[in-house]
Amino acid sequence: MALKVVMGQRLLKANEQVAAENRTRFAGAGTLVVNLISSPGAGKTTLLERTLPWLRDKFRIAVIEGDMYSVRDAQRIAGYEVEVVQINTAGVCHLDAPMVARALEELSEARYDLLFIENVGNLVCPAEFDLGEDLKVALLSVTEGADKPAKYPLVFQSARAVVINKSDLLPYTDFELETVVTELKALNPELEVFLLSAKTGEGIKEWCTWLEKLTGRKQAASRSGTG
Amino acid sequence: MALKVVMGQRLLKANEQVAAENRTRFAGAGTLVVNLISSPGAGKTTLLERTLPWLRDKFRIAVIEGDMYSVRDAQRIAGYEVEVVQINTAGVCHLDAPMVARALEELSEARYDLLFIENVGNLVCPAEFDLGEDLKVALLSVTEGADKPAKYPLVFQSARAVVINKSDLLPYTDFELETVVTELKALNPELEVFLLSAKTGEGIKEWCTWLEKLTGRKQAASRSGTG
Repeated sequence: MALKVVMGQRLLKANEQVAAENRTRFAGAGTLVVNLISSPGAGKTTLLERTLPWLRDKFRIAVIEGDMYSVRDAQRIAGYEVEVVQINTAGVCHLDAPMVARALEELSEARYDLLFIENVGNLVCPAEFDLGEDLKVALLSVTEGADKPAKYPLVFQSARAVVINKSDLLPYTDFELETVVTELKALNPELEVFLLSAKTGEGIKEWCTWLEKLTGRKQAASRSGTG
Repeated sequence: MALKVVMGQRLLKANEQVAAENRTRFAGAGTLVVNLISSPGAGKTTLLERTLPWLRDKFRIAVIEGDMYSVRDAQRIAGYEVEVVQINTAGVCHLDAPMVARALEELSEARYDLLFIENVGNLVCPAEFDLGEDLKVALLSVTEGADKPAKYPLVFQSARAVVINKSDLLPYTDFELETVVTELKALNPELEVFLLSAKTGEGIKEWCTWLEKLTGRKQAASRSGTG
């Protein structure tokens, strides 16, 4: 076990160096970078499908799709008139900063206002790898149950926002919304929490308005040289 | 990246050796060992809560609960009159064979007929670590969407059975059951597929009858010295 920990730390150090390079690049370009993390099937791609039509007329947007093998998510996003690059990790359970740096080389433009990175579906490992993003957003769907913050604390501690998705299924589950929000705020008092349904569109406006505000701030910081 | 792969292989080799020792021990004791793997929130613990009352009068049963930090699952299972040991992995994203070997030392009896191992909620990494089990069972809930077999093939290729859980929510989702079963069988033609609701109990009888048959076979093999 000791061997594993040592190697993990070395890998994380190398990752942090490339993440810092990515972050410098994003700051120079004024790009707000959002790293989306969740269990498989919590609705990351569907959330993007709802979000892109709201924001694509206001901002230059790109999407990096992380998946172990398939290109299904990138195929879905390609229909939304934004640039998309698929990273296939070939079995690796998370994205890392070097993978993102390589994906950036595939983008056709040097500057975007907003870059979404959809991580591999996994509530554990992606939380450990800084990609150089501005913020992590964790998705939790109401069908996953209310005990997830206690069981997977790192992702919720390190996120700026949590999207509680599939609100349309609330009437058919025993999901305790108030309990979850209380537990999330105990882990991370600064957390923004959005309740929405990427399927029906309920709550999407608040989420997109928040992203719009953050994207505008990042652009202003870049122009003033403080980004 | 090369470094990472090398270390992963060394770790897997060490794991395989302990897994083989676990397997020899289980064969000698005539214990059928079931390794339950799924995304967070797919319903592993609820499935056990439905399964244990069906089987506990017929067999000596123990449960090993894997979780990163919490003891919530073990607390739930402790109410079902079976022996339960919690493994906290302290942030590690999967169980490994040495963790299971240590948990076995905490069990009060030398022989059980049936041992359930509930892995950490993660559809990726647990599939790579042999624990010495007889079979892996992958859970997939209908709310996770029909694209999961294509996106996470290893777990479904290495499983003996897939439990498609939360059938009570089928009417409220666009889950394509036939497509999923077709894709699962393409990945793994030998796969047993159970559709059930651990919440309502629908389909539980078929699942428990199958486990009962396998447990009886393992006992018979142990008695005849072929296990």
